[in-house]
Amino acid sequence: MIFEVKILGCNSASFAFGRHHTSQVVNSNQNLFLVDCGEGTQLRMIKQQIRFNRIHHIFISHLHGDHYLGLMGLIFTFHLQGRTDDLYIYGPPGLDEIISLQLRHSESVLHYRIHFQVIEHDDQLLFENEDLQIISLAMNHRIACYGFVFREKQRRFKLKRELLPETLGREELLLLKEGQNVTDSAGRVWRNEELASPPPVPRTYIYAADTRVLDGIREVAEGCNLLYHEATFTSEMQSRAEATFHSTAAEAAQFAARHHVERLILGHFSSRYQDVSPVLAEAIQYFPHTILAAEGQTYEVPARVASKQHASII
Amino acid sequence: MIFEVKILGCNSASFAFGRHHTSQVVNSNQNLFLVDCGEGTQLRMIKQQIRFNRIHHIFISHLHGDHYLGLMGLIFTFHLQGRTDDLYIYGPPGLDEIISLQLRHSESVLHYRIHFQVIEHDDQLLFENEDLQIISLAMNHRIACYGFVFREKQRRFKLKRELLPETLGREELLLLKEGQNVTDSAGRVWRNEELASPPPVPRTYIYAADTRVLDGIREVAEGCNLLYHEATFTSEMQSRAEATFHSTAAEAAQFAARHHVERLILGHFSSRYQDVSPVLAEAIQYFPHTILAAEGQTYEVPARVASKQHASII
Repeated sequence: MIFEVKILGCNSASFAFGRHHTSQVVNSNQNLFLVDCGEGTQLRMIKQQIRFNRIHHIFISHLHGDHYLGLMGLIFTFHLQGRTDDLYIYGPPGLDEIISLQLRHSESVLHYRIHFQVIEHDDQLLFENEDLQIISLAMNHRIACYGFVFREKQRRFKLKRELLPETLGREELLLLKEGQNVTDSAGRVWRNEELASPPPVPRTYIYAADTRVLDGIREVAEGCNLLYHEATFTSEMQSRAEATFHSTAAEAAQFAARHHVERLILGHFSSRYQDVSPVLAEAIQYFPHTILAAEGQTYEVPARVASKQHASII
Repeated sequence: MIFEVKILGCNSASFAFGRHHTSQVVNSNQNLFLVDCGEGTQLRMIKQQIRFNRIHHIFISHLHGDHYLGLMGLIFTFHLQGRTDDLYIYGPPGLDEIISLQLRHSESVLHYRIHFQVIEHDDQLLFENEDLQIISLAMNHRIACYGFVFREKQRRFKLKRELLPETLGREELLLLKEGQNVTDSAGRVWRNEELASPPPVPRTYIYAADTRVLDGIREVAEGCNLLYHEATFTSEMQSRAEATFHSTAAEAAQFAARHHVERLILGHFSSRYQDVSPVLAEAIQYFPHTILAAEGQTYEVPARVASKQHASII
């Protein structure tokens, strides 16, 4: 099943060196979720050939401009393009007021309906379908700020249809899908592995928005498959990172190592770095499975490598 | 004296074919005035190498997103870049509320001060310095919408310093600057043209924002040197132009001809036109001195050609 994230923008507050404000698209089994929406996101979507009518859910982490100022333009563009599908927006308190005020002053009556869900606290279930749950994750930033946990659901065992005997009824098939052994109408016991394949282990993607490194984070991060974490600065700027409630590459990497993350993507780079390779160089000292976000690139949420035990260097 | 306009964006509501939302910079004697500020304007400014610290005055025509959604990002970027200079924003009622709300929710305390002036009516003097006046011009659009008249002031006569006799006092010099003849202390009469050169004829640039063609426009448009007028559609879309309170190329050109405009720039093209040459083809049937706005191009406000009498075809 597809579970991947495409980076639309990964720079911090300013546009610089061809990098843009934060936005990304999570694809879970062909359902797209837009995460943050900095100014110009609609242009980034056009460039990446992401069709607007595939976006039904938009998650906004916080109300610093580089994370949400493209939202209003997207709302208007959806309207102009004749959208009729409902749009679901999840964001911190105040975002609904900002949207409503601008709709009112433009005297816009949208052709479609916006459902707004306020993110009020950590660990809030925001969205759920048969494939995954999306849950809020409180950040430690200057203003109310939430990351998002995309957690795949446990799928059922897959039946080996060509091997199924006719002596099994509907009830036994359901038991097989749950991973159990069954007894058929002739009294024969079938071991589950004879007739079914186990589902893949559910994966988790975490989008950590702007934040100081999260020492008190819930156990949700433990062993997550892919973590997008900000690394606005390198350690040379430690005091600035602390003052502005951002993280350094070292801090993000140490966090990933401590929590046995499978893979780490760093983003939200400061405009002071034209060349962001020092960010990577610093991080891999602490967590080798680190990559730098690159706009336009798509990153699969990797399965855990069972035999591998990431050494925690910390 | 420099008097020119640089086009940053000239498409209508959507981004299309490399064209961007409305924004332009008027340069009057090295004072820059930003007119409208669609999403992504700060990126357009960077591309056109317009330094942010040269912008002190921003004029917003109306509260449709394609004309103002880049403003908030620009305000934040100014702040991040350490701006301390005051910023003057002129716009319709509601814009100040939209800005204030977003500053409040981002908990931003700007390093600089914003002065907001509400545009409340037609013919409102918004700005004045020694070179020019900027005056509101009511449009006929779906919501409150204003264009802007940039009117150069009458400059004084320029003294031919090398020819000035010592027998003239300060008072006579001032009279010469006003175009008068003078009598020196020896009783000699000097004709003005002997000692002074007449100033250039003041020019007027009009930015007409989104509008139905302005039949009832004040006489201010009469004979203006450069008129930027929207031509969202060609006449094939006449009924759509009327329904959406926009203009066709023919209407804009007929207006320019009727009012003896020196030169017409058409912009705000609909995204239905990848090739905008039909817009020009239609306009020049009615007004030959028409050009199409092109992003990144700078257009001088031309002096009137005294001997030329534009034939009104209407």
